[in-house]
Amino acid sequence: MKRRNFINYATTGAIGATALGACQQQTAISTTAASLDLPVIRWRMATSWPKSLQILYESADLLCRTVSKMTDGRFAITPYPAGELADGLKVLDAVADGTAECGHSASYYYLDRGPAMAFGTTIPFGLTAIQQNAWLYYGGGLEMMRKLYADLDLGVINFPGGNTGAQMGGWFKREVNAIEDFQGLKMRVPGLGGQILERLGAEIQVLPGDKIFEALEKGLIDAAEWKNPHADEMLGLNRVAPLYYYPGWWEPGTSYEFQVNLSQWQTLPKEYQEIFQATATNVNAKMLAKFNAVNGKELEHMVLGGTQLLPFSREILTATYKTAFELYEEIASGDATFKKIYDSWKVFRDRIYGWNQLNELSFANFAIDLSGS
Amino acid sequence: MKRRNFINYATTGAIGATALGACQQQTAISTTAASLDLPVIRWRMATSWPKSLQILYESADLLCRTVSKMTDGRFAITPYPAGELADGLKVLDAVADGTAECGHSASYYYLDRGPAMAFGTTIPFGLTAIQQNAWLYYGGGLEMMRKLYADLDLGVINFPGGNTGAQMGGWFKREVNAIEDFQGLKMRVPGLGGQILERLGAEIQVLPGDKIFEALEKGLIDAAEWKNPHADEMLGLNRVAPLYYYPGWWEPGTSYEFQVNLSQWQTLPKEYQEIFQATATNVNAKMLAKFNAVNGKELEHMVLGGTQLLPFSREILTATYKTAFELYEEIASGDATFKKIYDSWKVFRDRIYGWNQLNELSFANFAIDLSGS
Repeated sequence: MKRRNFINYATTGAIGATALGACQQQTAISTTAASLDLPVIRWRMATSWPKSLQILYESADLLCRTVSKMTDGRFAITPYPAGELADGLKVLDAVADGTAECGHSASYYYLDRGPAMAFGTTIPFGLTAIQQNAWLYYGGGLEMMRKLYADLDLGVINFPGGNTGAQMGGWFKREVNAIEDFQGLKMRVPGLGGQILERLGAEIQVLPGDKIFEALEKGLIDAAEWKNPHADEMLGLNRVAPLYYYPGWWEPGTSYEFQVNLSQWQTLPKEYQEIFQATATNVNAKMLAKFNAVNGKELEHMVLGGTQLLPFSREILTATYKTAFELYEEIASGDATFKKIYDSWKVFRDRIYGWNQLNELSFANFAIDLSGS
Repeated sequence: MKRRNFINYATTGAIGATALGACQQQTAISTTAASLDLPVIRWRMATSWPKSLQILYESADLLCRTVSKMTDGRFAITPYPAGELADGLKVLDAVADGTAECGHSASYYYLDRGPAMAFGTTIPFGLTAIQQNAWLYYGGGLEMMRKLYADLDLGVINFPGGNTGAQMGGWFKREVNAIEDFQGLKMRVPGLGGQILERLGAEIQVLPGDKIFEALEKGLIDAAEWKNPHADEMLGLNRVAPLYYYPGWWEPGTSYEFQVNLSQWQTLPKEYQEIFQATATNVNAKMLAKFNAVNGKELEHMVLGGTQLLPFSREILTATYKTAFELYEEIASGDATFKKIYDSWKVFRDRIYGWNQLNELSFANFAIDLSGS
């Protein structure tokens, strides 16, 4: 640890200190307090979120505000909405090349770096939020994702920093009951979910969030998924499509991350490193709690406003599940990195599915049924 | 905020600083660093955990270690196992009377202060871990619990700090298929769960964790619940009872908390307050992740060793559910504080049950079924 190698800080926006004043004050309190020689650091955080994606942007901002309060403003990180410092889908690139010292984004936006990037966020029919956290923190997941970043020579270190929980299956203008109903269906679903539905006959389009409403309204697409009631309402999707399907099997526990330029990270005093990483975990827990706290009410509003809730049929889920794992096996056969993570992930998944089926699901299924919700 | 009122720190173990040395060093780096006049604070943390309750004790220790690293050892909190600074079930009292500056415990150990204390931890047929976090952080739960502590004039402020996830239903020497099977059954279940089973004919005993093995082995009790595979294995319960029931409907998302003496809290600089509270949330997320990561493997070991997994019958769950809510209504009718929290909690519960049924459960039920786990 190079805490005292202050030369490094000069490149990160360190500013001159009023050392004399501080010392005079310190002498006055010398029997009770010691000073902590922590540098002033100013960082910029590129994010993948426009401010309209409220809970996401707020989560980036929460890290910045918390870190600032912990350090009396000395470690000052300013968040920037998508498009200001970097395009929303290029945050990782901006952090890698030093345009921003850090970012808040999702690893699965960067599948061009390799399909294994998906594991850091979520994969279709993968882990729920609490399972993803168990995998990342104590199942070897975060280590594997960091090794992947290192092997890709990104010069970036990542910290889990937010989760939406299981998402919804999106907005449809007409019913999909059988797998044939996806034939020719024009749908907005990015990533692996889109690839799976494409194999089943859908015509997949990838549109940024702010283009979905218009495309649905004009009939350019028949269906679109975004996230969950709170986030979807922000885009007004309930006003242009009547049917709201569930579950969003392609994103069962979408996990975001803080990405930090590795050289910048290494120049941080160890206190700031600890502060940054504990605060990221704090944000991770808080975002999930917030989405869970607000989505129920939003869903009630939507239903009162005419939204119809429909479950995907067992036929559709079975076909998409089968297609998903065929896809993973294919990717694994051609990509050693994906295969290594996937093999380890599958063992973890089977074990935690087994455990959560017993403890969480057997409880929740009964309790919700009996409560009449 | 009284950051500069250093007199207060003298009572909390502040030590003299090497002010001159620090200033000399600081002058040398005056162009790049500013000093932060943060006091040295030494706190003791009483915990409800013997060291043998590994993940629980480790969580208390994690907060202490993290806070220390964030402050270069200046905010130094030492955790003490149950029985050293305070009895495991008297941590709140020790924090209230200043024997310890802070503690790690569960609010439901202190039902003698009023039945509403249960809400801070878990209540039978209540919220799962992610629901409890949503309620505490963004559903008004933590505010209500803090108001309760203030109204009780405890002089303690609390921070959510750990969750076991949904627990198991415990170890039985003989099958319980119908509600009559609880008649005369000698079982170790503390708290509200015990009261519910007592109404259904069981003979409830409350034993501390380290007495359960012996009581089961000697046949003094017929059944006992503790927590989950990892924690139960530590007590050896699988070696003295063959049947392991689920779900543990009386503890669907047991939430622990850090308790801080309010006068001590108020003397902390705001940086340390922020550090403490963000780290508590960090620990909250990490404990849940750890339990979820390790329980599956432990469960597999138990099953290989002969443990039989059995679900409580629908008849038993229906009867206990009905009895639970009758009990809550009764308590509410005689305790205005309980009623106020309970009424608000119920609205929150219905909403989040409705939401999680759609997003989490509809996904998890399908995925686990299809995966063949």
